[in-house]
Formats: sequence, structure tokens, C-alpha cells
Amino acid sequence: MNTPDRSLVSSVLGEYGEATRALLFQYLPSAEPRRYLYDLAADYPKRGGRSFRPSLCIATARAFGTAMELALRTAVSIEMMHNAMLIHDDVEDESEQRRGKPTMHEAQGVPIAINVGDLLSLLAMRPLLDNRGILGAEMSLRILEETERMARESAEGQAFELGWRRDNVVDVSEADYLLMVLKKTCWLCTIHPSRMGALIGSRGMLDLDRCIRFGFFLGAAFQIQDDLLNLEGDAKAYGKELGGDIREGKRTLMLIHLLEHANKKESARVCGILGRRREERTDEDVRWVLEQMGAHGSVDYARQVAHGLAGAAQYEFEQLYGYLPDSRDKQFLKALPVWVIERN
Amino acid sequence: MNTPDRSLVSSVLGEYGEATRALLFQYLPSAEPRRYLYDLAADYPKRGGRSFRPSLCIATARAFGTAMELALRTAVSIEMMHNAMLIHDDVEDESEQRRGKPTMHEAQGVPIAINVGDLLSLLAMRPLLDNRGILGAEMSLRILEETERMARESAEGQAFELGWRRDNVVDVSEADYLLMVLKKTCWLCTIHPSRMGALIGSRGMLDLDRCIRFGFFLGAAFQIQDDLLNLEGDAKAYGKELGGDIREGKRTLMLIHLLEHANKKESARVCGILGRRREERTDEDVRWVLEQMGAHGSVDYARQVAHGLAGAAQYEFEQLYGYLPDSRDKQFLKALPVWVIERN
Repeated sequence: MNTPDRSLVSSVLGEYGEATRALLFQYLPSAEPRRYLYDLAADYPKRGGRSFRPSLCIATARAFGTAMELALRTAVSIEMMHNAMLIHDDVEDESEQRRGKPTMHEAQGVPIAINVGDLLSLLAMRPLLDNRGILGAEMSLRILEETERMARESAEGQAFELGWRRDNVVDVSEADYLLMVLKKTCWLCTIHPSRMGALIGSRGMLDLDRCIRFGFFLGAAFQIQDDLLNLEGDAKAYGKELGGDIREGKRTLMLIHLLEHANKKESARVCGILGRRREERTDEDVRWVLEQMGAHGSVDYARQVAHGLAGAAQYEFEQLYGYLPDSRDKQFLKALPVWVIERN
Repeated sequence: MNTPDRSLVSSVLGEYGEATRALLFQYLPSAEPRRYLYDLAADYPKRGGRSFRPSLCIATARAFGTAMELALRTAVSIEMMHNAMLIHDDVEDESEQRRGKPTMHEAQGVPIAINVGDLLSLLAMRPLLDNRGILGAEMSLRILEETERMARESAEGQAFELGWRRDNVVDVSEADYLLMVLKKTCWLCTIHPSRMGALIGSRGMLDLDRCIRFGFFLGAAFQIQDDLLNLEGDAKAYGKELGGDIREGKRTLMLIHLLEHANKKESARVCGILGRRREERTDEDVRWVLEQMGAHGSVDYARQVAHGLAGAAQYEFEQLYGYLPDSRDKQFLKALPVWVIERN
């Protein structure tokens, strides 16, 4: 695996992210009720973020030789859907921090946070409806259909994760986990942006199902790296509370590995911790689970799996886009598999 | 005001409701995860309900001489959006009962309930995308745009109500209240179904803004009657806990009237009750507020306002649809203003 061109990745993310955000804010109405709705709809987008999803969409379209303008509204919609889902995910996961600040429901209460998430997800339809003027009615409807599918896959993945957590399911297999990640993370994070970029870029000529494998490998590597950062990272840089996933009882690859490799007594203690309510899980619980993950090689194992997935994504990149003429956008796409597992 | 033909209204609601539900259930995937998602998506629709919204859409289209088939997918989408919003509203309002059973979040927990609501609201896009085959791409996009507007208006109305409640705003005027009802109730309940029925029925020829007045008067009368039933009705027949709105701290016309007419001491006690958390409001609090509403004529006043609004809706009906040839659907629309305030 080659070292990715970090400066290329970050400059593309910066450029496409800025273009996306500039248009995104134009789609947020400046109207009443401000303090209970529209000011809040702008809150998460204003906190920044890497703009990974919209950049992937734009770069894919451009790698086919298409102008950014044609993909921009779709990219804006993807970023709005992402922020909408973050707000609801934070409520569902009882997360306390997001991008270094209190989550929406911590600051505004659960009822208003749910409503702001609902608003953002439907506002995300507007740029897609505006696609009509530049992409035509048929292509616009196709993108809306794809968006409905993406959101449905995401809801299915979220349902698995929430169900496992609520019912304290402790026999989640690695295959179950990867199916959940495919749906919950990959569809919105990588598969859908790739497909929409390829759809717009190829003007409907590319078989979009071919984007699923690339998106899955890339997105799964992304998710595992995210979960590793949640364990290891610096709380300030990462913007969420440290070990928050353990406190939330989230089924991660490390946790699944630990449950498979711990002895009976350790396993019972892990299940006991998972069986408690979130607020009953102590700092000591979190520290102990972290230690066990280290002792049983669960963290190393997850790092290896992420590495393997990134390699598979590199292979799929060549199959999918290898024939395209060289360009900055193609180089960006090529650099992503290594970038997702090396970022911090 | 003439006595409405109750049997006509209930037979039309029954017929169009059945057609809507039959197609609606075809739009709910039979797939995994069932117990955490798709079985739950069918839960609220299976509990029944009057099917007022889809019936209004279908009857309006048919009053213009159009086949039910052309409006049916739009009606299904409206009913799905309605159920999606009910699930989230119940979480936001901390409601315990819905149509005679525990609310979704009472039965499944808040995280899963939020996710099921998200799923249902996006599944509601599918019948609208399928409109393409029968209504064409342009009309389908128009209906999607209108749906986005309706959902935005609803979110704005909900934001006002949730904000007032969270911050215990006690100086809500009747004008504020009516604006909130216009957005929160009328857009989904009456304005949007009327507009979509008229759009499809007139094949885009009718000025849809003319439907707003009819829908507002009808929908506001509907909402006030709903709030009156919540105070007075039989818990079993109504399917929600009695006086639940008072317990939830909901700003109703009766509460606004009471706050305007109570003396200083009474007013302070009402504000004190509203300032508490939901679970701290006692049965005694609810009973006392109910008594005060009776003593200050707040209930009678609300009944009069609903009556006046229904009369205004009758007038608007004649302006909008008076010229259409006589039909069962036209008679149904004509009977609605009185029906909404006389139902129980």
C-alpha cells in the first residue's frame, strides 16, 4: 500500500467542502421560527466536519469529466441528510458531544432535536428537486429514488444496531456486524456518494451496482477506523467523549472480538456492563473494557481488518475507475482507501 | 348550518380509507430487520384511524371528475407521512397512548421509535416516485415539491409548539396559536390533501393557493374539536389518556383563553403547573385546570370559535368547488366542515 497524498486529499476535501457548505447554507431558510428551528438547522453544519461524503460525490462525477456544478446540488443534499441523521443518531445513542460541543438534544432537549432532524432531512429534498433545471426531470427522479434507497438502507442498519443494544444481544457475529456497517455507515458515507457521482458523471451509463463493492470496502474501513479513534483518540481532536462507544454499549468489531475471545468470567462481566443502562456504566467499566480489548488483541485485530478492507477498496478502485483518464479527482479517489485508515 | 350527512361522510371515509390502506401495506417492505423496523412501521397504520387525510385528497380529485387511481399513490404517501409524524410527535409530546394502545416509544423505547418514524417518512417518497408512471415526470416532481413544503410547514408549527412548551411561554396570543395550528395541523391534515387532490383533479389548472383558506378553516376547526375531545371525551373512544393535553402542557385555545381570563392568583397557579415537568403534573393539577376552563367559559369559547371556522370553511367550499357538477365526492367535501366539529 502506498502512502496516500495527504495534502491532495485534504485540499480536495477543503475545496469541495467549501463549495458544498456555501450552497448548503443557501438552502436553509432564514425565517421564523429561528430559535426553535432554523438557527438550529444550521448548527451542526456550522460546526464543520470533513465534508467527506459530498466531496466523494463531486470528485467521482468530475473524474468522469463532468463539471462540479452538475453534482453540487446532490452533494449538498447528501451533506444535509448526513447532518439530519447525526442529530437523530445522537438522540438514539444518547451521545453527549458532537464535533467538540454538546449534542443538539443536550443543548435543546430531545423534542426540539428530533424536530430539527426531521426538518433537515426533508430540506435535503430541495436541492434534489432543483436538479431538474440542470439534470432534467428523469435524472432528478432517478436521484430521488436512489436517495430513498440510501435512507432506507441507513434506517435498516440503525435498526439492527439499536435493537442489539436495547435487547443486549451479545452473540452478534462479525458477519452480522459487517452487514450492519454496510447498511448503517457505507450506504450514506461511501456507496451513495459514489453511485450518485458515477450516475451524474457517466450520464447514467455506468452500472451503479458496481459501486457497491468499492463503497462497502471503503466505508467499512472508515467505520472501523472511526471506532478505533473513539477508543484511542484525543477527546479534543475527535470531538466526542473518549470511549463513548463503550459507554453507549455500541457493538463494534473490537467488542465482538473481545466477546469471542474473553474467558467465561470476563465475558460475563462484559455482558453485565452491556446489560446496564447507559448512565449506570461507570468510568471504571469503560477503562476495564478498554484494557480487555488491548489484552485480547481486539484492537490490533480491528486494525488489521480495516487494513484488509482498505486494500480491497484499492483493488475495486482499479476495476471501477482505472480506465478513466488521469486527473486530480481520480488521484483523490485512489488515495482514499489509505487515507481513511490513516486519518486521526 | 345544515346537519351533515354523517352516513355519507363515514361511507366515503371507509371506502377511500380501505383503498389507501390496501396499497399502503404493499409499500411496507417485508424484509429484515422485522422486529426492530418493518413490523413496527406497520404498527400505527394497522391500528386504524379515520383516514381523513387520504380521503380528502381522493375525494377532491374525484370531485373534478378524475379516477381514484390517479390520486391513490399521493393519498397513500399522505397517510404514511401522517403516521411518521404521529410517531415522532408522540415522542416529542411524551404521549402514552395512541389509538387505544401504548405509543411506539412506550412500547419500543425512544431510539427505535425515532428510527421507525424516520423510515416511514422516507418510505412515503416511494408512492410519489411511482406517480411517474401514471402522472408523468413533471407532475410527479411538482407533487414532491408540494410534499416538501407541507412537511416544512409542519416542522415549523411543531417547532413553535415545542418551543413554547420547553420555555414555558405563557403569553401566546390567539393569533400565535392560529398560526401554529395553520402550520402544524392544517398543512398536513387539510391544506395539502386538498391541494394535491385539486392539482391532480384539475391537471394543474387550478390556482392551488386558493385551497389554503378552505384548508385552514377546516383544519383549524378540526384541531380545536380534537383538543375539546381531549378534554371531554371518553378515554376509550378517543384512544388517548383523558386531559392528556393539559398534562403535556400543550398550548390549546382553551388554555390561552383561560390564561387571558383568569385572575392573578389563578393565572399564577396555571403558570406554575405549566412550568413543571410533565411527570410532576398531578391528576389534581389536571382536574383543577379543567374546572377553571369550565368556570371561565374557555371551553364554550373554543366551541364557538370552531363553529365560526366551520362556517367560514363552508363559505370557502362554495367559492372553490361550488361550480363543479354535483357528485358524491362533492357532497362529501361539502359535509366536512360540520362533520369535523360534530364528530366525537
